[in-house]
Amino acid sequence: MKVAVLGAKGRMGAEAVAAINSATDLTLSAALDLGDSLDQLVSTGTEVIVDFTTPDSVMKNLEFAINNDIHVVVGTTGFDDKKLEQLKSLLSNHPKVGALIAPNFGLGAVLMMQFSQTAAKYFESAEIVEMHHANKVDAPSGTAIRTAQMITDARKQSKKSAMPDATKSELPGARGGKVGDVPVHSIRSHGYVAHQEVIFGDAGETLTIRHDSINRAGFMPGVLIGVRNVAKHPGLTVGLENYMGGM
Amino acid sequence: MKVAVLGAKGRMGAEAVAAINSATDLTLSAALDLGDSLDQLVSTGTEVIVDFTTPDSVMKNLEFAINNDIHVVVGTTGFDDKKLEQLKSLLSNHPKVGALIAPNFGLGAVLMMQFSQTAAKYFESAEIVEMHHANKVDAPSGTAIRTAQMITDARKQSKKSAMPDATKSELPGARGGKVGDVPVHSIRSHGYVAHQEVIFGDAGETLTIRHDSINRAGFMPGVLIGVRNVAKHPGLTVGLENYMGGM
Amino acid sequence: MKVAVLGAKGRMGAEAVAAINSATDLTLSAALDLGDSLDQLVSTGTEVIVDFTTPDSVMKNLEFAINNDIHVVVGTTGFDDKKLEQLKSLLSNHPKVGALIAPNFGLGAVLMMQFSQTAAKYFESAEIVEMHHANKVDAPSGTAIRTAQMITDARKQSKKSAMPDATKSELPGARGGKVGDVPVHSIRSHGYVAHQEVIFGDAGETLTIRHDSINRAGFMPGVLIGVRNVAKHPGLTVGLENYMGGM
Amino acid sequence: MKVAVLGAKGRMGAEAVAAINSATDLTLSAALDLGDSLDQLVSTGTEVIVDFTTPDSVMKNLEFAINNDIHVVVGTTGFDDKKLEQLKSLLSNHPKVGALIAPNFGLGAVLMMQFSQTAAKYFESAEIVEMHHANKVDAPSGTAIRTAQMITDARKQSKKSAMPDATKSELPGARGGKVGDVPVHSIRSHGYVAHQEVIFGDAGETLTIRHDSINRAGFMPGVLIGVRNVAKHPGLTVGLENYMGGM
Repeated sequence: MKVAVLGAKGRMGAEAVAAINSATDLTLSAALDLGDSLDQLVSTGTEVIVDFTTPDSVMKNLEFAINNDIHVVVGTTGFDDKKLEQLKSLLSNHPKVGALIAPNFGLGAVLMMQFSQTAAKYFESAEIVEMHHANKVDAPSGTAIRTAQMITDARKQSKKSAMPDATKSELPGARGGKVGDVPVHSIRSHGYVAHQEVIFGDAGETLTIRHDSINRAGFMPGVLIGVRNVAKHPGLTVGLENYMGGM
Repeated sequence: MKVAVLGAKGRMGAEAVAAINSATDLTLSAALDLGDSLDQLVSTGTEVIVDFTTPDSVMKNLEFAINNDIHVVVGTTGFDDKKLEQLKSLLSNHPKVGALIAPNFGLGAVLMMQFSQTAAKYFESAEIVEMHHANKVDAPSGTAIRTAQMITDARKQSKKSAMPDATKSELPGARGGKVGDVPVHSIRSHGYVAHQEVIFGDAGETLTIRHDSINRAGFMPGVLIGVRNVAKHPGLTVGLENYMGGM
Repeated sequence: MKVAVLGAKGRMGAEAVAAINSATDLTLSAALDLGDSLDQLVSTGTEVIVDFTTPDSVMKNLEFAINNDIHVVVGTTGFDDKKLEQLKSLLSNHPKVGALIAPNFGLGAVLMMQFSQTAAKYFESAEIVEMHHANKVDAPSGTAIRTAQMITDARKQSKKSAMPDATKSELPGARGGKVGDVPVHSIRSHGYVAHQEVIFGDAGETLTIRHDSINRAGFMPGVLIGVRNVAKHPGLTVGLENYMGGM
Repeated sequence: MKVAVLGAKGRMGAEAVAAINSATDLTLSAALDLGDSLDQLVSTGTEVIVDFTTPDSVMKNLEFAINNDIHVVVGTTGFDDKKLEQLKSLLSNHPKVGALIAPNFGLGAVLMMQFSQTAAKYFESAEIVEMHHANKVDAPSGTAIRTAQMITDARKQSKKSAMPDATKSELPGARGGKVGDVPVHSIRSHGYVAHQEVIFGDAGETLTIRHDSINRAGFMPGVLIGVRNVAKHPGLTVGLENYMGGM
């Protein structure tokens, strides 16, 4: 399969180029960056593009690709409802083209969220501890917030009653926050990259799901799953988990 | 729903009696132990029995229950192929009766195994660390062996190549063993009850699923899932995970 | 060595009786509870008492023991400055008698606090995650508060600057609190007993010290260290760590 | 303080150059690599050298430095008894010069070993789990072997009896080994860098000390402790822990 990378000089794009070069079933047809002509996608017979560019340029890239019947795997951030609608409209004229928008390509993170959604149905309590480097400006992390929302939804569907919590006296100042039903605890320290632990508890037992991500290489197996499966999923798909069957 | 416990004076049976008494949607119809007449099951209108007796007496109990159209939830150990065949034959004459044979009622343990089976498809490496009290005679634990087999099967189905391992020099004497593809590490120490960690690794990330069980109460939510669902699953079911949909 | 237990019918006292009976170098001389005469301590030749009674009765017991030149190991809670002064005054007339007041007999907890105090000097960041059963009314736990204070003091002595923390956006509602310099995260769930993790971080590395306590038996090795060493430490000692040399 | 780095183009040397440049109390006087003249050390008034070169060239560097009354902090590997004797002999003629040979500059690793040595005196059981990247050729790791030896020595001094272990049935093939008294479990997987967990257990409680190292930057705080303290420790010192008081 012929695959081009857009944003090939960026940090994620460069990793994607390396990952495609290492995969024996994939051929890198083009590695484009700012200013390069998109026409190369057509002349090289590219079948799938991987886009790690910027919120400003991504829509132009996707329009070109879809109009030329090239599948798109997108890690660029900033997809709001408006952009998703534009994308659906583009795709409606090319019903065989697949488009994957993935907020997180980390397989481990995606699995952690899926497993948490399932476990939430069976345990009384759920809390999240997430650990990130000290330069992170937001707490809780985006992944923690999304996990907490998924757990909250699953609890609602299972008609869970409120989590047991006898706390009467407390102190101020804990970093984190309560998201839906779920207390999230945010640790910030040098020596961490991106880590999260989801803890489920019930009488006599706890189940803990932990993901540790220490560099960008960890996202590439997820990008490759996207590349290899996008042609089998025509239309718009949001979230890599939709390509990961049987969970 | 009227539920009877057989083996009610044993440790697991006593916990089951307590759990049923605490459940507002269930009524304890009988709590029988060695020497008590099974006729009470009929006279009390019992709909489901929970059997925590012994490999020697369990088949007689199940025969009586099934012949009286009572569903059976079984935690008693020692079910080999021969016993399972006998059970199927009994059930074939009572097509509405459900029978659940569950080697492990711990929800957390069941989920850990299910999640491991799924994660095995996405990660290059998988290893298990299991921690038990120092009085345990077998290493690796039964749960670890079963988890390792499930991971090995999942890897085979996904056509995974051998795990990366550059080890050239080694020392003898590590407790544990290799089960299928999976190295299992067994820790034995006072201060532990029953714990297991399944570690999945790939470039840049690890996913760890850990289950900690500190007492028998941890098995009761699983028993109750069995009791509440057995009537909806006529015929023989082996493994609580078959009642836990959507995983 | 002849050892008596006061409060022998309480939960901790009963464990102490069992622990002394199991120790080959110690003899249980008396097991007293409410209403039993203290005179037995003298008639049995008791050398050390272990007191797990109540804040109301403990001072009367200690007065009797010290006046009869019997060493005292005390796990009873509620020792404020006034009681400690009374005790010092009693001991001043019996200069060979040792008295140990121990807020926590868990060796693991004591070591965790000592190690944390040391590590605090070498790492930029320190945070605490403590996990307790859902029936606990206070957050953070007493052990977490004490650990955080010890870390804060050690940082002050090492003239550490403020921990790195770029957090700009936050949510309300995280259980726990900031104690001195140290963010403490409090998790409450069934399935836990008493657990604490102290995390130290700096560029490229983290050091984590974790203590898991699953039952009262875990306090007995600490009680026995107290019993075996109290005679060598005349006068008042507060904190088991003072008997644990070489840390 | 004027500090020179030898082996400045190597991976550790380059990190050391950066660390010294970032430290406000230190001045980088020279950054030398293969072929550069050592005379610059004298002409620049260097007070301390940091040597991250090779086993072949290190002794020549140290001889030059010591003969010019420059203190030496050495991370180069391969110091056997013969080299240490040579070094002592060199130092005997320069009694004010300090030399630190450090097999491990990771503060976290050094503290983990120190804490393990202390904890070993108080717990019945001790086991080590170490996790490294899949390209590592030796199992157990050097740090695990050294930790296990320190624990074994501490147990001997405390006259500990054998660890409790009821294991009767076992499987072959677990990676790791028994070092002294201590079972060591070795996990190898992509996604890890260098990690170790030391677990101590006794009735009702476990104490776990874990070190996670994710890049070379983690060694630099230890290098700086060496640089800042070597002048206060004339003569030969092996092991950074000797500069870390009060543990």
